[in-house]
Amino acid sequence: MTSSSLGEDLKKRDLSPVSCETAEDQPLPLSTAIVTIVGMGLMGGSLGKALVKVGACKEVRALVRREKAAEEIVAIGAAHSAGTDPERILEPADLVVLATPVRTIEHQVSEIHRFVKPDSVITDMGSVKTGVVKAMDSLPMSIRAIGGHPMCGKETSGLAAAEPELFRNKVWVLTPSKNTDAGAMLLVQAMIKAVGARQIFMDAEAHDIVVSCVSHLPYVLAATLIGVAEDTAGERPEIWKLAAGGFRDTSRVASSDLTMMIDILAANRNNIVNMLGLASSRIGRIAQLMIDSNEDGLRDMLGQIRDRRIGMFQTG
Amino acid sequence: MTSSSLGEDLKKRDLSPVSCETAEDQPLPLSTAIVTIVGMGLMGGSLGKALVKVGACKEVRALVRREKAAEEIVAIGAAHSAGTDPERILEPADLVVLATPVRTIEHQVSEIHRFVKPDSVITDMGSVKTGVVKAMDSLPMSIRAIGGHPMCGKETSGLAAAEPELFRNKVWVLTPSKNTDAGAMLLVQAMIKAVGARQIFMDAEAHDIVVSCVSHLPYVLAATLIGVAEDTAGERPEIWKLAAGGFRDTSRVASSDLTMMIDILAANRNNIVNMLGLASSRIGRIAQLMIDSNEDGLRDMLGQIRDRRIGMFQTG
Repeated sequence: MTSSSLGEDLKKRDLSPVSCETAEDQPLPLSTAIVTIVGMGLMGGSLGKALVKVGACKEVRALVRREKAAEEIVAIGAAHSAGTDPERILEPADLVVLATPVRTIEHQVSEIHRFVKPDSVITDMGSVKTGVVKAMDSLPMSIRAIGGHPMCGKETSGLAAAEPELFRNKVWVLTPSKNTDAGAMLLVQAMIKAVGARQIFMDAEAHDIVVSCVSHLPYVLAATLIGVAEDTAGERPEIWKLAAGGFRDTSRVASSDLTMMIDILAANRNNIVNMLGLASSRIGRIAQLMIDSNEDGLRDMLGQIRDRRIGMFQTG
Repeated sequence: MTSSSLGEDLKKRDLSPVSCETAEDQPLPLSTAIVTIVGMGLMGGSLGKALVKVGACKEVRALVRREKAAEEIVAIGAAHSAGTDPERILEPADLVVLATPVRTIEHQVSEIHRFVKPDSVITDMGSVKTGVVKAMDSLPMSIRAIGGHPMCGKETSGLAAAEPELFRNKVWVLTPSKNTDAGAMLLVQAMIKAVGARQIFMDAEAHDIVVSCVSHLPYVLAATLIGVAEDTAGERPEIWKLAAGGFRDTSRVASSDLTMMIDILAANRNNIVNMLGLASSRIGRIAQLMIDSNEDGLRDMLGQIRDRRIGMFQTG
């Protein structure tokens, strides 16, 4: 990101660009920072492993719910230290990364300022950003915060699936809040760079619309495919024997972590319901073209879709 | 397949089991058979390559439309000989495998008996079976025929994508016709075994219902996902930057060969339209649960779906 686009982005968030120039915006180098990760599932665990592996910061700490998890996290190299006491773990943090389910993040953002030192930077890894950024907007001005979303879901979940290379070459969306300043942004950007990801800046609302289409709609369509197969299997149990590669690929994300997905469906409800309406309407159009035996219409629509898909992912 | 299930299958097709016992049902060994493949795209080309590679039969011939293609086919080892003249290529064939688009197959089945010798066996590789088997039912009794469908689609198509291992460990559905006898069945089964696939017997109608769900619905859902993204990209062009793994997997089969898919949508229209209705209704149920904030309902439905998906494909 160039400094001019950084300035533009801040303008969009109604922050005076003057705030870029103040002394407190001088970024803390990541190498001297204590980074505390809250929640060590797939995302938090992978981030911890990545930061520990490349030695990106002074210390990686993990805040977890159970003592046993804390021991394991240090043992597998996902943090230098870990514990269950928020006061002890959060107080020295220069950068706090919330990596819990997204509605938990919304709640934690509002609570966390009671534990962190002034000028701490808070970011998160949640899949839905409007509620998180709204909570960040309401923080005391001494707490700096910026929303984040690494686009690298897997169907597997939990610490056991964590891997330090998870973020390599992936997009990491940053959604500034009213409490974002240039120093906060630069510290989080340094972390993103350290784990090999590429940042993109977006408004939280725009992000949530886009992911409702590219990330949450695929989940519902995958679940729909399995659901329809279940409906059909009552009379045709042989269906499970014939499901091959196309079924496998199209249904893959239906095995995503349930708690995470229920949370996302609630946090991004309106956008997803809107996408489901567009999907139903598109399915209806295809069905109607089929019923009308309108092969030219089908060829036009599906040809355009095919060209787009091939153009997007040259390698399949 | 055991001989008893073979007998049962013939009974289901209203063939007298006595027809299993006649002298003319003595199977021709595949090793002494001339196999002629009609249409050398992904499927026909892969079959030719596999049969040539393992030396499964006396000769592999290919019937194609252009002389230039005939030369290429022999050069790459997809057949021992190839040509454009149906009379010359088809006449000596013991086994004819139709590997053209499915509505072309329906037409070719009705025409082919003018070219082949009596007692030839005809099979095919089409994705929809009711129309093909109906055409087979109408053949003179001297021409034996059985429908076939190897379940191993790829998004790539054409001879260039053909590979001899395409059928390895894949399901190859066989749909008997009134013109199927045990000898025909055994010859085709020997070919399926030679290329490493596993046969499953089904009624053509049952097959078409099942594939409308496991194979054709995934295509329409994948196309729907790309279509909705196109609809959204007008206002949100950044959508293409954020499409990650879930989008990629769920949309993969939208890049399937267009001519093949248009053909399938027409040949299996009623079943697919029915599946699209089930899909729309399932999407509507999910949307309604979301609108009602019925998280228990979502958790029940999506949890069951997730368990099913994980149970089906243990390895993702």
